[in-house]
Amino acid sequence: MRHLLDTRDLSRAEAVSLLDTADRMGEVGQREVKKLPALRGRTVVNLFFEDSTRTRISFETAEKRLSADVINFAAKGSSISKGESLKDTAQTLEAINADAVVIRHPGSGAPQRLATSGWIDAPVINAGDGTHAHPTQALLDAMTLRQHRARLGGTDTAGTDLGGLRVAIVGDVLHSRVARSNVWLLHTLGAEVTLVAPPTLLPVGIGEWPVTVEYDLDAALRRGQDAVMLLRIQRERMNAAFFPSAEEYSRLWGLTPERLAALEAAGSDTAILHPGPMNRGLEISSAAADSGRSLVLDQVTNGVSVRMAVLYHLLTGPQAPHEEGHHDR
Amino acid sequence: MRHLLDTRDLSRAEAVSLLDTADRMGEVGQREVKKLPALRGRTVVNLFFEDSTRTRISFETAEKRLSADVINFAAKGSSISKGESLKDTAQTLEAINADAVVIRHPGSGAPQRLATSGWIDAPVINAGDGTHAHPTQALLDAMTLRQHRARLGGTDTAGTDLGGLRVAIVGDVLHSRVARSNVWLLHTLGAEVTLVAPPTLLPVGIGEWPVTVEYDLDAALRRGQDAVMLLRIQRERMNAAFFPSAEEYSRLWGLTPERLAALEAAGSDTAILHPGPMNRGLEISSAAADSGRSLVLDQVTNGVSVRMAVLYHLLTGPQAPHEEGHHDR
Amino acid sequence: MRHLLDTRDLSRAEAVSLLDTADRMGEVGQREVKKLPALRGRTVVNLFFEDSTRTRISFETAEKRLSADVINFAAKGSSISKGESLKDTAQTLEAINADAVVIRHPGSGAPQRLATSGWIDAPVINAGDGTHAHPTQALLDAMTLRQHRARLGGTDTAGTDLGGLRVAIVGDVLHSRVARSNVWLLHTLGAEVTLVAPPTLLPVGIGEWPVTVEYDLDAALRRGQDAVMLLRIQRERMNAAFFPSAEEYSRLWGLTPERLAALEAAGSDTAILHPGPMNRGLEISSAAADSGRSLVLDQVTNGVSVRMAVLYHLLTGPQAPHEEGHHDR
Repeated sequence: MRHLLDTRDLSRAEAVSLLDTADRMGEVGQREVKKLPALRGRTVVNLFFEDSTRTRISFETAEKRLSADVINFAAKGSSISKGESLKDTAQTLEAINADAVVIRHPGSGAPQRLATSGWIDAPVINAGDGTHAHPTQALLDAMTLRQHRARLGGTDTAGTDLGGLRVAIVGDVLHSRVARSNVWLLHTLGAEVTLVAPPTLLPVGIGEWPVTVEYDLDAALRRGQDAVMLLRIQRERMNAAFFPSAEEYSRLWGLTPERLAALEAAGSDTAILHPGPMNRGLEISSAAADSGRSLVLDQVTNGVSVRMAVLYHLLTGPQAPHEEGHHDR
Repeated sequence: MRHLLDTRDLSRAEAVSLLDTADRMGEVGQREVKKLPALRGRTVVNLFFEDSTRTRISFETAEKRLSADVINFAAKGSSISKGESLKDTAQTLEAINADAVVIRHPGSGAPQRLATSGWIDAPVINAGDGTHAHPTQALLDAMTLRQHRARLGGTDTAGTDLGGLRVAIVGDVLHSRVARSNVWLLHTLGAEVTLVAPPTLLPVGIGEWPVTVEYDLDAALRRGQDAVMLLRIQRERMNAAFFPSAEEYSRLWGLTPERLAALEAAGSDTAILHPGPMNRGLEISSAAADSGRSLVLDQVTNGVSVRMAVLYHLLTGPQAPHEEGHHDR
Repeated sequence: MRHLLDTRDLSRAEAVSLLDTADRMGEVGQREVKKLPALRGRTVVNLFFEDSTRTRISFETAEKRLSADVINFAAKGSSISKGESLKDTAQTLEAINADAVVIRHPGSGAPQRLATSGWIDAPVINAGDGTHAHPTQALLDAMTLRQHRARLGGTDTAGTDLGGLRVAIVGDVLHSRVARSNVWLLHTLGAEVTLVAPPTLLPVGIGEWPVTVEYDLDAALRRGQDAVMLLRIQRERMNAAFFPSAEEYSRLWGLTPERLAALEAAGSDTAILHPGPMNRGLEISSAAADSGRSLVLDQVTNGVSVRMAVLYHLLTGPQAPHEEGHHDR
């Protein structure tokens, strides 16, 4: 693994190895001194062509916990917005000897271009590109689902696999890089994914994805799901002709208090996930977001762990960081 | 002390203990290697919902001198400005295992809500909320006044108290969190505070504050003051009906060259304080700002020391940092 | 050397000493652990009154590689933009015990004022002021030219001097701090500088500069140049009456594919430099920018090394950093 661009490229072994490392990184986050020396003296650049405070903070925290030197490069207002090409930006980062580049970009495929162009040798980590992919989000979701299954089964997280796990992903799949990256990773890990969305919010070509498609959320939930993942609605899309109104969206595809009550009544263990930030009252009710079955905050915690694991694997190789950790106070 | 929200909550012993620690932190700032290992591997988040370069830089410097990992989270342009609730933001910071949150917020009471909501376990430090409180500013002012009194008395700063010290706070008290936090802290420390302001710039309920109110700055100065603290005028308020014009304000409540000359003529030791940034020529003349009795730059220096002390007390307890300091080169 | 304000102030010995240190700093950038402990516990403030992502990133990388604590202070939106004086800002930085201030300012002379006003004791490094000077850019250009000459001559970079080196600087000299700083430094180092520009883009008083002036780029190239440095066009200036149109500019003063072909045909070793970011197709063609004779990326790499060297000299003195480097893993 030289870059992390898309979960579609990950083998099962690579994904499991990343998740195992992430589990160990999670232990670092519980310590008083939340720091490993692994990336000391390495320069990691966060190259953000799109605002995303949460993702940037999660990566920055991960990088600092690994002792890297962090350079934040917000492309807005910079020479990039004045028309500098991605090529020149990439070569500049290479020239300052950046050891890794974390890139967030509104254009689908930009991280690929960065990684495969030859402009740069450093590992490239996709922090979300257009409607294409968001692989660290999918990894943190898989980590969260694995912990959930291990907790229910009373088993070790490390030994737990996601084979047969039923996951419903609900909402604007058409525009969601989170959905795409989850579909591929969950499929690789053996889970069974159901996409639940209005027909206008499903992409052309979905017939070739390894998923079941469903238009009726209640039916999908009644069939039984181990987890339901609500996608964030981009409010700026809601005026488009193909988009339902807020009321209709919430009523038909939102995790309303009524649907939460139905889950409770059915005695299910269905977990609730959301990539955040949540539009409370729209795709998810506050009752659902704050319920005992919500894993939203675990997702945030795991985000740091997964990003530490990715940086660690790309920059030092996939061996365990345990030894080094012990040297650290 | 779990949080620092308001000087009104501080006991005399707590305040003195913070000031004593701040004195020792001030010594760190004089070294070549201005660094203590105290907060190594701890994550401190600066959560700023309001621009304030000076306060942010002072906190950031303090955090870095204590070896913390610093995450700057400017809420503008982030998901918060897109309507994410304070609750979700708080829980996100908790989920990434932030060890302390420094919050600046335009809404009075936001830090309290953060600290007492149960959303977050980490200590919360109020870096200024609305017109309510700015406790680290009051602490740095007290530190500065204590140094001033010790200097005049030829005594040790650590043993010096502020009992009976006469402090005049001048200007727009109505909107000033600096004034409020100073009133409570100075009162706790035994000082005698006089508020000097036009009647329209004094809050309702001031009768219950432990202060003397005065409308005439010259009268207040003639009575004798050990220190006079000029509040910053927010220029955007100056068009309001209740607000004097700039000329009138400066003439009646500004520390003009004439008033400075009167202090000099009287042979007083009155010190001059201002929280900065100064509107030279408005609430303070350049003659006053740059005179030998101005402690404005001591205030800035002490700001870093006080913030180091607050972080140190909240994250490691109120014992002295001396030992650790000696381990550090 | 107390500050770095202008290459005009640098003696030959000082410049060569900085370049020698920069060479050694360049080796640090090639290591896995790109870090020297030299500035541990020192606070370096990047005070940017003008956006410049590239220059800021280069300085920040340099500072972090020297283990300094870095405070980024973007003046936009801060109290400075609300009218705080440079004096008050400077004194604030002094009061927080900043060890060095890197300043970028749209006003020519601002760094000088900062350094010579007595407001601040810390070394001041000019990161570009108005149309006046950009000394670290000139130093990185000289470092790049020295490497180029050493490479061609098969000699050691450290022993190589620039005596007699022919350098053409092409474009909007009138507004270019890069041109000015290069002229003085290259002259000090013994190079022969030709300025090539339309008459309207040359400053009054150029007769007193130690340069040859030429209006015809082809003639200048035919005479033979060891290097040609293209200045960046500020597109916002292109509507001014004195400015050629884009087509005319590119045709007459751009390094077009045709001019590149002529260089190739002549079998010359002429190197191509550009301070970046490049307007491809305007002052430089992509063919030229990406050709084997382009040193643009060496310039970026050397930028970090030169800035490390400047910080190192100003904060610890001009001795070699070698010993310390060896202590570091």
